[in-house]
Amino acid sequence: MPEFDLVIRNGTVATASDVFGSDVGITGGQVVALGRGLGAGAKEIDATGRLVLPGGIDSHTHIEEPRGGPTVNADSFASGSASAAVGGTTTVIGFARQERGGSIAQGVAEHLERARHSRIDYGFHLILTDPRPEILEEELPRLVEQGHRSFKIFLTYAGARITDDQALEVLAAARRLGALTCIHAEHHELIEFHTRALLKAGLTAPKHHAWAKPMVVERECVHRVCAMAEALDVPIQVFHVSGGESAEEIERAQRRGLKVWAETCTQYLVLTAEDLDRPGFEGAKYVCSPAPRSRADQAALWEMIRRGVIGNITSDHAPTRYAGPDGKSAFGEDAPFTRIPNGVPGLAVRMPVLFSEGVVKGRIDLPTFVSITATHAAKLFGLHPRKGTIAVGSDADIAIWDPAKRVTITQAVVQDANDHTPYEGFEVTGWPETTLVRGVPVVEGGRVVGAPGHGRFLPRGPYEMIKPRGIFPGPFNPVDGVPA
Amino acid sequence: MPEFDLVIRNGTVATASDVFGSDVGITGGQVVALGRGLGAGAKEIDATGRLVLPGGIDSHTHIEEPRGGPTVNADSFASGSASAAVGGTTTVIGFARQERGGSIAQGVAEHLERARHSRIDYGFHLILTDPRPEILEEELPRLVEQGHRSFKIFLTYAGARITDDQALEVLAAARRLGALTCIHAEHHELIEFHTRALLKAGLTAPKHHAWAKPMVVERECVHRVCAMAEALDVPIQVFHVSGGESAEEIERAQRRGLKVWAETCTQYLVLTAEDLDRPGFEGAKYVCSPAPRSRADQAALWEMIRRGVIGNITSDHAPTRYAGPDGKSAFGEDAPFTRIPNGVPGLAVRMPVLFSEGVVKGRIDLPTFVSITATHAAKLFGLHPRKGTIAVGSDADIAIWDPAKRVTITQAVVQDANDHTPYEGFEVTGWPETTLVRGVPVVEGGRVVGAPGHGRFLPRGPYEMIKPRGIFPGPFNPVDGVPA
Amino acid sequence: MPEFDLVIRNGTVATASDVFGSDVGITGGQVVALGRGLGAGAKEIDATGRLVLPGGIDSHTHIEEPRGGPTVNADSFASGSASAAVGGTTTVIGFARQERGGSIAQGVAEHLERARHSRIDYGFHLILTDPRPEILEEELPRLVEQGHRSFKIFLTYAGARITDDQALEVLAAARRLGALTCIHAEHHELIEFHTRALLKAGLTAPKHHAWAKPMVVERECVHRVCAMAEALDVPIQVFHVSGGESAEEIERAQRRGLKVWAETCTQYLVLTAEDLDRPGFEGAKYVCSPAPRSRADQAALWEMIRRGVIGNITSDHAPTRYAGPDGKSAFGEDAPFTRIPNGVPGLAVRMPVLFSEGVVKGRIDLPTFVSITATHAAKLFGLHPRKGTIAVGSDADIAIWDPAKRVTITQAVVQDANDHTPYEGFEVTGWPETTLVRGVPVVEGGRVVGAPGHGRFLPRGPYEMIKPRGIFPGPFNPVDGVPA
Amino acid sequence: MPEFDLVIRNGTVATASDVFGSDVGITGGQVVALGRGLGAGAKEIDATGRLVLPGGIDSHTHIEEPRGGPTVNADSFASGSASAAVGGTTTVIGFARQERGGSIAQGVAEHLERARHSRIDYGFHLILTDPRPEILEEELPRLVEQGHRSFKIFLTYAGARITDDQALEVLAAARRLGALTCIHAEHHELIEFHTRALLKAGLTAPKHHAWAKPMVVERECVHRVCAMAEALDVPIQVFHVSGGESAEEIERAQRRGLKVWAETCTQYLVLTAEDLDRPGFEGAKYVCSPAPRSRADQAALWEMIRRGVIGNITSDHAPTRYAGPDGKSAFGEDAPFTRIPNGVPGLAVRMPVLFSEGVVKGRIDLPTFVSITATHAAKLFGLHPRKGTIAVGSDADIAIWDPAKRVTITQAVVQDANDHTPYEGFEVTGWPETTLVRGVPVVEGGRVVGAPGHGRFLPRGPYEMIKPRGIFPGPFNPVDGVPA
Repeated sequence: MPEFDLVIRNGTVATASDVFGSDVGITGGQVVALGRGLGAGAKEIDATGRLVLPGGIDSHTHIEEPRGGPTVNADSFASGSASAAVGGTTTVIGFARQERGGSIAQGVAEHLERARHSRIDYGFHLILTDPRPEILEEELPRLVEQGHRSFKIFLTYAGARITDDQALEVLAAARRLGALTCIHAEHHELIEFHTRALLKAGLTAPKHHAWAKPMVVERECVHRVCAMAEALDVPIQVFHVSGGESAEEIERAQRRGLKVWAETCTQYLVLTAEDLDRPGFEGAKYVCSPAPRSRADQAALWEMIRRGVIGNITSDHAPTRYAGPDGKSAFGEDAPFTRIPNGVPGLAVRMPVLFSEGVVKGRIDLPTFVSITATHAAKLFGLHPRKGTIAVGSDADIAIWDPAKRVTITQAVVQDANDHTPYEGFEVTGWPETTLVRGVPVVEGGRVVGAPGHGRFLPRGPYEMIKPRGIFPGPFNPVDGVPA
Repeated sequence: MPEFDLVIRNGTVATASDVFGSDVGITGGQVVALGRGLGAGAKEIDATGRLVLPGGIDSHTHIEEPRGGPTVNADSFASGSASAAVGGTTTVIGFARQERGGSIAQGVAEHLERARHSRIDYGFHLILTDPRPEILEEELPRLVEQGHRSFKIFLTYAGARITDDQALEVLAAARRLGALTCIHAEHHELIEFHTRALLKAGLTAPKHHAWAKPMVVERECVHRVCAMAEALDVPIQVFHVSGGESAEEIERAQRRGLKVWAETCTQYLVLTAEDLDRPGFEGAKYVCSPAPRSRADQAALWEMIRRGVIGNITSDHAPTRYAGPDGKSAFGEDAPFTRIPNGVPGLAVRMPVLFSEGVVKGRIDLPTFVSITATHAAKLFGLHPRKGTIAVGSDADIAIWDPAKRVTITQAVVQDANDHTPYEGFEVTGWPETTLVRGVPVVEGGRVVGAPGHGRFLPRGPYEMIKPRGIFPGPFNPVDGVPA
Repeated sequence: MPEFDLVIRNGTVATASDVFGSDVGITGGQVVALGRGLGAGAKEIDATGRLVLPGGIDSHTHIEEPRGGPTVNADSFASGSASAAVGGTTTVIGFARQERGGSIAQGVAEHLERARHSRIDYGFHLILTDPRPEILEEELPRLVEQGHRSFKIFLTYAGARITDDQALEVLAAARRLGALTCIHAEHHELIEFHTRALLKAGLTAPKHHAWAKPMVVERECVHRVCAMAEALDVPIQVFHVSGGESAEEIERAQRRGLKVWAETCTQYLVLTAEDLDRPGFEGAKYVCSPAPRSRADQAALWEMIRRGVIGNITSDHAPTRYAGPDGKSAFGEDAPFTRIPNGVPGLAVRMPVLFSEGVVKGRIDLPTFVSITATHAAKLFGLHPRKGTIAVGSDADIAIWDPAKRVTITQAVVQDANDHTPYEGFEVTGWPETTLVRGVPVVEGGRVVGAPGHGRFLPRGPYEMIKPRGIFPGPFNPVDGVPA
Repeated sequence: MPEFDLVIRNGTVATASDVFGSDVGITGGQVVALGRGLGAGAKEIDATGRLVLPGGIDSHTHIEEPRGGPTVNADSFASGSASAAVGGTTTVIGFARQERGGSIAQGVAEHLERARHSRIDYGFHLILTDPRPEILEEELPRLVEQGHRSFKIFLTYAGARITDDQALEVLAAARRLGALTCIHAEHHELIEFHTRALLKAGLTAPKHHAWAKPMVVERECVHRVCAMAEALDVPIQVFHVSGGESAEEIERAQRRGLKVWAETCTQYLVLTAEDLDRPGFEGAKYVCSPAPRSRADQAALWEMIRRGVIGNITSDHAPTRYAGPDGKSAFGEDAPFTRIPNGVPGLAVRMPVLFSEGVVKGRIDLPTFVSITATHAAKLFGLHPRKGTIAVGSDADIAIWDPAKRVTITQAVVQDANDHTPYEGFEVTGWPETTLVRGVPVVEGGRVVGAPGHGRFLPRGPYEMIKPRGIFPGPFNPVDGVPA
C-alpha cells in the first residue's frame, strides 16, 4: 500500500529560507513528509532537475469582477484561475466590492458565488466605496468573523474613491476588528487637474495617461496614507508602488517603526512610460494606474525589493479585451486616454517574469523569489503557514519549475480569456511545468487540467501582522478612545 | 540750513549682511545717506551705544479682523499697530478675507478702510475661502494689479478651509498672476477625527487641544502642499511650521529645488504643550494652531533657522480677550477646547524675544536676526528694498535698539488692546527705544507717539521670488496648458 | 528495525521562514526526514511543547585564543564549546591569528590543534595583523583553498591594527580569492587622542573607557570601511555595530547597493555605558569595545534588526577572569581603564537573551530569531544549508527549546571557565533543554554531556555572498587591473 | 574743497543683503559715505549703468608658492595679484608653508617677503606638514597672535600629507588658539592604490588622473574630517568640494549642528572629467585635485550653493606653465598623469564665471553672488566688515562691474604669468571695468594700473566663526582636558 497519495521525487525544494534536495510526500492535500527516499506514493512525479516551489500567492487580482460602466472584465474565475495556475500561482486574493449606497455583504455573497468556479484557492479583499456606519459597525464585523480580513480603499477613481474622512473610519474599523487595509494611493485632485488640462490642450493619446499622473501624485498620497496609519497606529499595505520616490516614503514609514508594507507589480519592473507611446493605438494596452515609469524607477524598485522595503509582488491582473467585433480597439481608435480602461493582465507571467528578471539575472536569490511571490503575501494576509511555503502541514500548493526552460510570452502562452498581453514577445528563462493545488494537478506539462470548482475559499483568522505596534504620535489613541 | 530732516547719530547699523558704525541721514521719509559725521539734521537722535536696525516686518498678523462667530479680535488697527511699533515692527501684513459666497474684493475694500487707522505701514494677504471661477478670473487679477500679491488658504478650520481641488485652483491662479500663496497646513480630517474622539472621551481641557493635533497632522499636510506646489511648479510659503518633522518636509522640498519657504512663529520657539496644562483655565491662553510642541522641537526649529531652512519668523498675532465682564473666562471656565478661540497675541514681543533668545543667547548672529525679522519677509513678499533693510533709498523704517535693556514682559509692556499675553513674566534682554516709520517716530522712549493713520498701504508689484523655477515632475505643465 | 537513528517527536520546528509542527528524523548526523508520525528512531526525544530550533551559529567568538601580553583567555575549547552548547549554539567561528612578522598559516595550524577539543563544530576567521605580500599571495590562497574563507582585520588596538593601506591589500586579496573580510572599525587615532587626554586628566575609571570612544569614533570608521569596500567592490561585514549612528552608515552603504553586512552583539542590546559605572571596580566587568551605549541606541539597533539592516547577532565572547589569587581584581583594583582587558563573555546567553528580549517581548518573530542567531550567519559565512536551518540534508544541529522556562542568569548557569558574567542576575524566559550537534547530544537537560573532540572543523567553499556586486564608483576596477 | 578723495557716482551698489542705487564716498581708503548726490570727490568715477560690488576675496590661491620638486608656480605676487584684480578680486589668501622638519615661522617670514610685491591685500593660511610639539606649542601661538589665524592641512599628497594623528593635534591647536583649519580631504591610500593599479595597467593618460580618485575617495575623507571636527568640537572648512556626494556629507555635518563649512571652486562648476580627455595632451591642462566631475555634480553643487550648504567659491589658483622651451609640454608629451602638476589657474575668471553662470543664468541672485565671492569668505576668515562688503567704515575694495559686457576668456584676458587657461574660449557676460583696493585703482578699464607693493598684509584677530559650538559627542572634551 502506498505510503502517500503523491510523492514528488528528487526535486530541489525551496522555501523563503532554504534550498535543499528532498522528496515531498503529500497526503490529504497536505505536505506530510519531507525527506530523501520517501516511501511510495499512489502517484509519483519525477522532479529531477526541477525546483519544487511553493505555489504563488497573487494578492492583488481582478477576476470576473464587475467594473462600473460598459467595461467588462475579460476573465471568469474559470479562465483567470487557469491562467494563474499556468504561471505557478495557486492562490489568488481578489476583490468583493461594495457599490455606493449598497452592501458589502451582498458584494461578498455575489463574489463568493462567482468564485465557486475557481480552479485554485482564493480569498477577497473587501472594497469599501461607501463606509457608512451600518457597514462599518454591522456588516464588517460579521464579514471579518467569516474570514474576510482585509479591506481595500481607493483614494482616487471617480466611482470608487472615498474621502480622507471616510478612509479614517475604515482604518479605525480595521484597527478595531483586526483587519489589514490595502490602499490605492494617488492624489485624486491632482490627477483630475492634470487631466482637465490635458484634455483642454488636446493631449489625449495613451501616453498622456502617464502625463496625467506623474510620480509626485503617488508620492504625495503614499505619504498621506502612511501619516493616517501613523496617527491611528494601524497596519496598512500600499498597493502598486511604482517607483523610487514612493518606495522611499514607504521606507521612511518603516523607519518610523510603523507597520506599513508595500507591494509592487510585475509591470512596474518591466514596462515603462515609453510603452504607452507605442505606434498606433497599441499604447492603450499599457494603460494602468499608477502609470509605468522609467528604467531608473525599475532599478530603484529592485533595490527596494533586495533590501526588503517592498516584500510582495503582485500582478494587479485587470484584463479588458482590446478588440471589438471589427478587430479594432473596442474603445475607439482615437479614444482619449480617459476612456481607456485601466489595468493590464498578468496572472500567468508574474512568477516567470520575476524568476527570469530576478533570479536568473542575479538580482535576487531563490529564497527571496519564494518570499516575494508566496511567503510574504501568505504572512501578510493571514494564510501562513497553510499557504506560501513547503513545510510539514502546509497545503500541497506547489509549482514544479523548470529553471532552464526558455519561453517567449504570447497570448497563447498565458491562457487567460483576454485577447492580448502587454508582455507579448517578452522572453523569460524558467517556467512551471506542473502546478498542484492541495496535491491535485491544475496544470500538467503546461496544460490546464484542473477543474473549475476545485478552488476553495480561504477564511482568515486573526494573525500577527495586523496587530498594531502600539506607536502613537501623540498621547492619545483616537480609535480606542482612551489615553494610551 | 540742516542737510537732513533727521540724523540718527553714532549708532551701530545692522543689515542682513553687515554691522557697522554709521550715522543715518533721513530726508523725505527715506534713508538718503549713511556715513560718519554726516551734516546736521533738522532733528537728531543720539544712538550712541544703540543698534540701528531695520524696522521689523511681521508678515503674519491678525488685526481688527472679523472672525467667524461671536469671537472678536481684540485689536483695532490703531491698537495693534501701536503694539507692533512698541516691539520695533514697522510693517505688518494682515489679511483681507473673503466670506464664503462673498467677494474678496469686498473684503479687501472693507479691510483697507479699517487699516486706514494704522500707525505703521501695511499690506494684506487675501484669504480665499471660496475660490469660484469669477473670483479667480475676475477679482484676483484686478486685486493683484492693485498690489495685493499674496494669497492665503486654510486647509483646516471648518469655516475657512478649502479642499485640495480648490487649493489647486488657487495655486494655479497664483502661478498665472505672479502671486505667492501662504498656506495653513494641517490635515483637517485627522484633527476632526481626533477631536470627536476626545470629546467623546470627555477629554476637553485646553491641553487636549494639543492632543487633537499631534505633529503628524501637520507633517502630512506640509508634505501635501509641497507636492501640490511641485506638481504645478508654483512658489508657496508654509505658515507656522511648529517643529522638527514639519521643518524636515520643508527642507526636503527645498532639496528638490522647489521654491518652498516657511515661517515659524515666536510662540513655537518659547512655548510648549505644557503651557496648555497650566493650572485652572490658564491653559486657554496658550491655545493656538498648530499647538505648541516640545523643547526638542524648539531646538530643531532653531537649527532650521540657523541653516536657513526657515527664514521668516512672525507673530501670527491673534488677540482674543480672555476675561468676560465678570473677570472670568469669557468662553466659560469649563469650555471644551473646541470653543476656545485659536491664536495668541504677540506683535510687540516678536523682535525682543528673538533678539534675546537668538542673538543674546548666541543661537544666531545679528545679521541673521535682521534677516528673520525683516529682510527675508521683505524679499519674500515683494517689499524689498523699500522695506526690510537700511540702505540708501529705503524707507526710514528703523528700530533704535538698546541691546542691554532687560525687560520683564507684561500686558502693560506690550500695549495692545488684549487683556493678557502668553509671555507674561518672560524676561528678555534687548528692547527698542524708538521706532520710526518713514522717518517719523511712532514709538519714542517706549511711549507710543505715532498717530493712527500714519501707516500707508503697500502695493506690491511683480518680484523675483514669485517666479516659478521651471521645474516640473512630469513632461507637462498643467497650469500653462502646453507641454513644458 | 528503527527507521532513524533519532527522532525528535511532536515538537514545533522553526526555520527562518516557517514554524510548523513536525517530527524530525535524524540519521547519520543529518536531518533526513520531516513529517508527522515518522517511523521509529533508535533513540527518540519527546519535544511536545518545545520548539525545535536550528542550533545557533555564533560567528564572532574568542575561545582559547592567545591574547597579546599577560592576559589569558579564560576558556579552553572544551569549556567554551560547552558553554556555547548550554545556550543552544552548535557552531562557533573563532579566530586564528597572525602575529606581526609571523605566519597566518602557522596561526591556523596552532588553532586547529587547540580546536580539536571542541565539543561543537567550528571554523575560523583569519586575523591578519601583518599582510605582507608573501602572506597575501602565498599563504592566503592555500588557506582559502583549505576552507578558511573569511578574514578579520582590526583598524584599532595597538598590537593588532593595520593601516588603511594594508586594509586595502587585504580587501583586494579577499576580492581575488573569494573571501569575506570582517572588520573591527573604530578610529584608532581618535581613541588614542581621547585616551591620552583622559589619562592626563586623571579620568581613569572603567566608565572612562566609554568616554575614550564615543560613537563618532565608530561611525567614522564604519563609513570609512564602507567607502573602501565600495571603491574596490568587495563584500565586507562590519563587526559589533553598537548603536544608531553606525547602523545608519551601514544602511547608507546598503542603499548604495553594496554588499555591506553588519553584526551587533548581545551586550549592545542589553548593557549600557552606565554599567561601566557600577560601584567599586565592578564596572571593569563591562569593558568591551565598542563600549556599551545608551537605551536609545539599543532601541535603534532593534529597529535595524527588525528592518534587516543588521542581520547577525553574535556574542563576541571574550572571557577574562576578573579575580586574582586574592579574590580581588587581577588587574588591580585601581587599574586605569587602559589596563582592563577588553571583552565580555557571552556564548551561553546569546540565544536565550535574544529569545527573551526579542521574541518574548514582541520585538521580533520566531523566524527572525532563527535568522539572526543561525541562518543569516550560515549564509554569510558559507555554511548554509549544511548549517543554520532544519531542512532535509542539513546537519542535525538542533536546540530543543523550552519557550516558557524562566532562568536567572548566573555564572553557574553559563558554565564557561570564566569567573563572572556581565549578565549576572539578568532574567530570561526561554532556554534550551537539549542541544544536538550532528544528532549527538552535547547538552541534555541543561547538563553538558558532549565530549571534547566531538566538534569538527568546517571548511568553506565559494558561495554567493562573497561575490562582488559589480558596482564601481569609477570607470576602473583597481583590484582586477583592467577597466570595468 | 572736495568732500571726498573719491566718489563713485550713480552706480548700483550690492551687498550680500541689498541692491540699491547710491553714490559711494571714499576717503582715506575707506568707504565713508553712501548716499545719492554726495558732495564732490577729488576724483570721481561715473558708474551709471554699472554695479558697484565689494571686491572679491579669493581665499584659496597659490601664488609664487614654492612647490616641492622642479615644478614652479608660474605667478609672482606681482603677476598673480594683477590677474586677481583684473577679475575683480581685491584680497587673496594664500599659503605659507612649512617644510617637513622645518619651521612654519620661517615659511611665513619668507612668504611675507614675497608678498610684499602684491598689488592687492593678502593673508596666509599656514600649511602644516610637520606639526611637531614645538611648532604647535611655540611657533603657532606666536603666529596666530600676529594675525595668521588659519591653518591648512593636506590628508593626501606624498610630500605634504599628515596623518590623522597629526591632524588631530592641529585641530586641537586650532581649538586652543582660536584658528580655523582648512582641509584638503581625499583618502590618500585609496588614491595610491588606484594609482598603482592604473600605472601597472598602463592607464597613464591625463584622463586617468580622474580614474585614480573617484568621488568615493573624497566623500570618505570629508566624512572623516567632519568626524574629527565633531569629536574635538572645532570649526573647519573643507576645501574644494567637487560634487554631490561630498557636499551631502558637509550638509550632514551641518545638520548635526557642527561648524563645518565648505568651499567649491570655479572649475568644479564648469569643467568636467571629459575635459581631461581632450585630444593630444591637452587634457593635462585640466589636471587638478579633486578631479573635475560630471554635469550632475555641477548641478548638485549649484543647488548646495543656492541652499547655503556651500558658501564660499574660490579659484584654488595653481598656475604651472604648460610649454617648455620647445613649445611642447614641459612635463613630456607622454608623461603619466602622476607627473603632471596638479592645479589650474583661475584668479581672474572666478568672479566673471560665477556672475555669468550664476546671476545671468538665474541660478543665484546678486546678493548671493556677493556673498559667495566676498562676504562669506570675509566672515569665515575674520576679515569682515573691513573686507567683503560695501559699508561705512569698510575698506574701499570695489569692483565696478559692467553687467552686460560679453567677454571670451583667453590667456590674454586673464593677464597672469601662466601660458594657458583651462577656460580658454569660455564666454561670459559681465566683467569688471575698474577694481579699487582701498580706494586706489589697481585695474582701470581692464588695464592693470596698480603698483606692485600696494597690497598689504591683513592680520586677523579673534572672530565669531572660530568659536566652537560647545557640542561634544561624548561627556568629555579631549582638547580642554576636563569634563564638559
